[in-house]
Amino acid sequence: MTVSREVELEGHIIDSATLGTAFSIVMDMGGSFTVEAFDIGRRKEEVSYARLLVEADDEATLQSIVHELHQHGANPADPTDVTLERAPADRVVPHGFYSTTNHPTFVRYEDEWLPVEQMEMDCAIVVEDSADPPSVDNASGQSPRANGSDGPRAYTKVLNAVEAGDRVVTGDTGIRVEPPERPRDSGGAFGFMQGGVSAERPSESTIRQIAGAMRETNEAGGKVLAVCGPALIHSGAREDLARLVREGHIDMLSAGNGFAVHDIERDLYGTSLGVDTETLDHARHGHKHHIYAISEVIREGGIEAAVESGTIESGVMYECVVNDRPFVLAGSIRDDGPLPDTITDAVDAQNAIRAQAHEADMVLMLSTLLHSVAVGNCLPSTTPVVCVDISPATVTQLVDRGSAQAVGMVTDIGTFVPLLADELGEE
Amino acid sequence: MTVSREVELEGHIIDSATLGTAFSIVMDMGGSFTVEAFDIGRRKEEVSYARLLVEADDEATLQSIVHELHQHGANPADPTDVTLERAPADRVVPHGFYSTTNHPTFVRYEDEWLPVEQMEMDCAIVVEDSADPPSVDNASGQSPRANGSDGPRAYTKVLNAVEAGDRVVTGDTGIRVEPPERPRDSGGAFGFMQGGVSAERPSESTIRQIAGAMRETNEAGGKVLAVCGPALIHSGAREDLARLVREGHIDMLSAGNGFAVHDIERDLYGTSLGVDTETLDHARHGHKHHIYAISEVIREGGIEAAVESGTIESGVMYECVVNDRPFVLAGSIRDDGPLPDTITDAVDAQNAIRAQAHEADMVLMLSTLLHSVAVGNCLPSTTPVVCVDISPATVTQLVDRGSAQAVGMVTDIGTFVPLLADELGEE
Amino acid sequence: MTVSREVELEGHIIDSATLGTAFSIVMDMGGSFTVEAFDIGRRKEEVSYARLLVEADDEATLQSIVHELHQHGANPADPTDVTLERAPADRVVPHGFYSTTNHPTFVRYEDEWLPVEQMEMDCAIVVEDSADPPSVDNASGQSPRANGSDGPRAYTKVLNAVEAGDRVVTGDTGIRVEPPERPRDSGGAFGFMQGGVSAERPSESTIRQIAGAMRETNEAGGKVLAVCGPALIHSGAREDLARLVREGHIDMLSAGNGFAVHDIERDLYGTSLGVDTETLDHARHGHKHHIYAISEVIREGGIEAAVESGTIESGVMYECVVNDRPFVLAGSIRDDGPLPDTITDAVDAQNAIRAQAHEADMVLMLSTLLHSVAVGNCLPSTTPVVCVDISPATVTQLVDRGSAQAVGMVTDIGTFVPLLADELGEE
Amino acid sequence: MTVSREVELEGHIIDSATLGTAFSIVMDMGGSFTVEAFDIGRRKEEVSYARLLVEADDEATLQSIVHELHQHGANPADPTDVTLERAPADRVVPHGFYSTTNHPTFVRYEDEWLPVEQMEMDCAIVVEDSADPPSVDNASGQSPRANGSDGPRAYTKVLNAVEAGDRVVTGDTGIRVEPPERPRDSGGAFGFMQGGVSAERPSESTIRQIAGAMRETNEAGGKVLAVCGPALIHSGAREDLARLVREGHIDMLSAGNGFAVHDIERDLYGTSLGVDTETLDHARHGHKHHIYAISEVIREGGIEAAVESGTIESGVMYECVVNDRPFVLAGSIRDDGPLPDTITDAVDAQNAIRAQAHEADMVLMLSTLLHSVAVGNCLPSTTPVVCVDISPATVTQLVDRGSAQAVGMVTDIGTFVPLLADELGEE
Repeated sequence: MTVSREVELEGHIIDSATLGTAFSIVMDMGGSFTVEAFDIGRRKEEVSYARLLVEADDEATLQSIVHELHQHGANPADPTDVTLERAPADRVVPHGFYSTTNHPTFVRYEDEWLPVEQMEMDCAIVVEDSADPPSVDNASGQSPRANGSDGPRAYTKVLNAVEAGDRVVTGDTGIRVEPPERPRDSGGAFGFMQGGVSAERPSESTIRQIAGAMRETNEAGGKVLAVCGPALIHSGAREDLARLVREGHIDMLSAGNGFAVHDIERDLYGTSLGVDTETLDHARHGHKHHIYAISEVIREGGIEAAVESGTIESGVMYECVVNDRPFVLAGSIRDDGPLPDTITDAVDAQNAIRAQAHEADMVLMLSTLLHSVAVGNCLPSTTPVVCVDISPATVTQLVDRGSAQAVGMVTDIGTFVPLLADELGEE
Repeated sequence: MTVSREVELEGHIIDSATLGTAFSIVMDMGGSFTVEAFDIGRRKEEVSYARLLVEADDEATLQSIVHELHQHGANPADPTDVTLERAPADRVVPHGFYSTTNHPTFVRYEDEWLPVEQMEMDCAIVVEDSADPPSVDNASGQSPRANGSDGPRAYTKVLNAVEAGDRVVTGDTGIRVEPPERPRDSGGAFGFMQGGVSAERPSESTIRQIAGAMRETNEAGGKVLAVCGPALIHSGAREDLARLVREGHIDMLSAGNGFAVHDIERDLYGTSLGVDTETLDHARHGHKHHIYAISEVIREGGIEAAVESGTIESGVMYECVVNDRPFVLAGSIRDDGPLPDTITDAVDAQNAIRAQAHEADMVLMLSTLLHSVAVGNCLPSTTPVVCVDISPATVTQLVDRGSAQAVGMVTDIGTFVPLLADELGEE
Repeated sequence: MTVSREVELEGHIIDSATLGTAFSIVMDMGGSFTVEAFDIGRRKEEVSYARLLVEADDEATLQSIVHELHQHGANPADPTDVTLERAPADRVVPHGFYSTTNHPTFVRYEDEWLPVEQMEMDCAIVVEDSADPPSVDNASGQSPRANGSDGPRAYTKVLNAVEAGDRVVTGDTGIRVEPPERPRDSGGAFGFMQGGVSAERPSESTIRQIAGAMRETNEAGGKVLAVCGPALIHSGAREDLARLVREGHIDMLSAGNGFAVHDIERDLYGTSLGVDTETLDHARHGHKHHIYAISEVIREGGIEAAVESGTIESGVMYECVVNDRPFVLAGSIRDDGPLPDTITDAVDAQNAIRAQAHEADMVLMLSTLLHSVAVGNCLPSTTPVVCVDISPATVTQLVDRGSAQAVGMVTDIGTFVPLLADELGEE
Repeated sequence: MTVSREVELEGHIIDSATLGTAFSIVMDMGGSFTVEAFDIGRRKEEVSYARLLVEADDEATLQSIVHELHQHGANPADPTDVTLERAPADRVVPHGFYSTTNHPTFVRYEDEWLPVEQMEMDCAIVVEDSADPPSVDNASGQSPRANGSDGPRAYTKVLNAVEAGDRVVTGDTGIRVEPPERPRDSGGAFGFMQGGVSAERPSESTIRQIAGAMRETNEAGGKVLAVCGPALIHSGAREDLARLVREGHIDMLSAGNGFAVHDIERDLYGTSLGVDTETLDHARHGHKHHIYAISEVIREGGIEAAVESGTIESGVMYECVVNDRPFVLAGSIRDDGPLPDTITDAVDAQNAIRAQAHEADMVLMLSTLLHSVAVGNCLPSTTPVVCVDISPATVTQLVDRGSAQAVGMVTDIGTFVPLLADELGEE
């Protein structure tokens, strides 16, 4: 006995390989299909539409085909409402809960498509009625209800935020996923982002285009989040990075304890891990500077206090404090100290990162794998991301994680930031 | 005024992304298209067919679109004969000559499709009439005519082999390119090869599958060519590699001077670059072994002579000589010596490599970038290739160069070869 | 006016470069020296002794020279007692506190040399009188006094463990540092460890030697700690690693949330990040397995509970639970979930890591940079360490961090573990 | 029965670790020693002297100890003349010939120390009497005699240049090796070169210091040789590199066929491997540009002819021709074409490289491993070398090969060259 279901695809489904992928999935998983409707866009601006009848020998196979198609943007043609089930206990999701992608997603509830708020991958979706008691969402620690909307709402929750009684989406029905298409036109500032990783890409031209995308984001009122690794300080990029913060090209900062410590060490002692980044002299007693810098900030009670007391007088953290650019310092098990500002609990730190990530309109990932992965985990696939690292493996790993507009650049952060600052500079 | 041309695509054009690529090309290059015919294979074994009418505003644009489509397997629907032009001088090709891909290619000559022999990329195509005086082909130094065929023939020539008077294909008309499709079915021994580079792929399972593909090639009477870098010796894989040669799992060898020298040093002095690969002792006077090994072989007159005289008694080169496995040692500017067997002229060495490559039914590229690229340059896209290196960048570069059946494995050659030999072993 | 001080060096100070380093330090920092006594050991087993009179133009220079010499094992010839100062508040150290190296260290207190307990780098040293109220040490959360000793004691404290009133060592006087010498003799099982990073080292022979060192550690009643990254599971090494745990070759485990999740996913669903590590099939719905595995363990209340309930039936974590091998799962900001067993607070996790590290007699760092650095930070320089990773940069970074007996191996963890298990196997 | 020999060391033997190394060698190889004289320099400018009596149980052991000491700068205290033996045939050296290091070397001949000319490693040393018939040396193809000197001379010959009858040095006696000391003072332009590889070194400051060293070399009348890889063109550094050639900061160029082809492709078609390095557009028909550029140069007869005819109008090769900066293009087996200027025979190419290397007073190795190794093989250890590559493994390999003044920088060549050109620029 053969079972079947109709699925639909819409958009630039041919040149973005969506259609081909769908065909592959059906055939690889042992099904077959008939193309019931097919309307091809033949110019750049036109979208295509296809409706497939997917067939399989049994319901289980069909379901797993349809599930897989779904992840790739082929949605059932006959939508019904989502299935909801109550979470049995805090942090415990119902069996068969729907685990999100990072693509824009809609759930059908009471015959209407609700956009899922705060999209990020590997989450549960919670649906809340207007009558529901306010719950606490993923990131802000506030009820999403707080924003005044009144109808039913759907939003993501990471596993550890699920509360007993939450109505969690299970199964695949009543869900639409809309993977963003690769932009066809290379006209806009983000057009260059189509290329993926580019070890051999012309460096100066690429930097010019990244600067253009940042400027365009800022001019549109968007926010640029920079995720910063310690190599930025060691490689001598600190002063130019500080300038980008001061001049407002970077609006928010995400980093680890080490980044802040090295930045502050440079201010207090002129060194980074004991090396003078100007003269290249290896200060002979410099190895203590690192731990002394931490100790000084602890003594003051934190970075902001140390800036206000005049102890810290320059650098990236200084500019963040003075110019009111919010920063998140997330702790890790390799930290010395840590600084009082560092959020040592990983779940708390993720929540702080999540709140920043959801506000960001463009993200620069600069020489840090750990923090970039953490931020990337919280980003929807629609946020443009630029990954810069000297290791091709790091860049590839970050770019592959899912933004549709991710561009990677394999370069030296110590030359990248100065050249970027030059491009964006007012001088 | 709009100009147009019909092109056809056939095969698994949707799931192999061929069709999407074609659409992208037309639109990216400023043309538009109408799908005149479209017949979709809906099961694995069925092929699809599409006929597009490509339109552009002027003939130049149209031509460049059609040229590009052509590189990707979309062929003009109205074939005419190829255009031929005589080479004006040795090594000088006519302006606008057709530069080959590494895909199976056919040229239309006197209304018939001739397969182009000895396909490799970046070559000219020479067409020879039965009446033509015999010329000398790329690789063998013999006239292709020698093989007894009698009609007209087409074959590739690298630039430096072109002779005055050769009839060289120019332009794009009358040429069909048939890029191999990615295999749909993962059933055969080469099925696992679809995956591209696989740094995180399970190592032992992958090695088992490579062993299976080698065994299958051998059993079908095919030849396995191993391209070998010096790290094979340093990492202690020499004895197992020698065994693979001895037992016939490897039929031909391509390497550089250094590989042979290290292999022979190990035989003569028990070291590789001065290090004992068993005890890990760094023989204190070992740095001389390298140059002494070279000197000994020069004294004997060559590797074969040194084997016959009993000077060389074991190792990879020894097994090649004793078991009659042909080897090519290609020289490079970083060689010490070199050994008398090393072909120092790059063009001569390429010709020797080319002859081997054309005979190979499966190629293992083991820890050498330079020699692997050289061999890869001479391979048609239909030859299965396995690239093994500890550097992801090397593996990616090799796999991206064009075989449709290339698989990459990022692993330690010093553990890979022993495990491979175990899988293939008779013990 | 010239000031001067005598310093002494003892041990294999010449062939371990200690003496040369000392000379360099004096001269680079603007001082001069006279060799007042010099007795050279001229056979392997003999130690050398040197006494230098170091001179400088002013006291500040002299102090910084002496401080630097001190870090490298040259100790003042005229020891006086350490200087102690009370910590003014919790987590706040006195100005000028002595920041430790990871070498064996002694402080002179009431004319006696006290060994500093729980040596690790970048800590403060706290001295406690027999009369002092018991304090809480770095790692165990128990008072060091608990072990029954009765006299005064000295031990390390990380910055965030310092409590108001702790008597903290400041300055450089009264402190002896004894950097371990590189072993001269390559006879013992750890003899091979002299070589540092070894990308080109013969793989099988090196693995044999590592196995030998593990066996020797076990036979001497020592404990082997394995620090494990997720690549161990992806690369198919899981079953062999589980066997090493089961058979007691590995006594303790340090890992992150991801490692445990992948291990358990493999048990529950047969995949690792959705890939079947045996057949290499990419399970089409496998992307959910990861998050489902986490959810199942949360439902059970933790790994141990899930083993006991029969939910988890095999794997590395299973063997740890069943065979009573203690494990620490340290959280990070990139974790999904996390599992209930994962310690999410970085400081708590460091304390758990520290307790394990201090118990370890040999440490294997397997394919994880983050966790290896965290463990390495807590190790004294006398603990033998083996670092295995496919990235040379990772291995170099780990080996350079300070064990005197660190050996690095650049290899594929997916082939390393099976070959290691073979060497150690009972079969 | 114990045998013994006296050896001497002189120079900064302690802080450059020479003495410690010597002690280690004796003890590791089973000997013992007595320090018969020891005079330590105690200020930067003072040298030290040590005389050791080395003892061993048998003559063979003693010889191998003395041989090894010799490689590291410990020379016999009782010099006798070198042993010379005639080469039995062309390219065949006498058994036991002395294989050179790359350090300054002297041979004792008729009771006088002759400096060995054209030092490079892995060569034989040939001694020629004034009465000897002129022979042909390694590099120039001319007799060293040509330079007018009249007494006996010693010079290196690579194995394949040895001629029947050459008087070749065998054994170890009568040879002094003087490894250059690491410079103590960081005052000069080359002072920064002490640091070895520096992935985390501050980028801009390091570039400033490299620029300073180049300027100093030029001002002293020295010659800067740049070894150039194709990535220079792909990464967009071509115009700035061309400017450095034009303005005389680079005096000689060593590269491969590919570098020149990419440079010329950019001139003829505005692309590098088909990519426009300014706009980042991937010219759709660009894949042909590479082979077309080769064809055009072949048609003209070579690069110089193509510049003169006006075919090539800009770029690095253009500036070399127009400004008379000599270049060597060495062939390899991965070359397309090759260009008529490319030396396809590896031995001929090595000789051309050798001649350039011996003239160079400073060498920049820019993003090419193969050519950098080839040039490095021909350099004495006294020539300052700067290695720049984005791969740490490449930089480490090059820096470890033996110059005493090698500095490595892990950075992006596409940002390095523009910043270097800025530092050196006249604008």
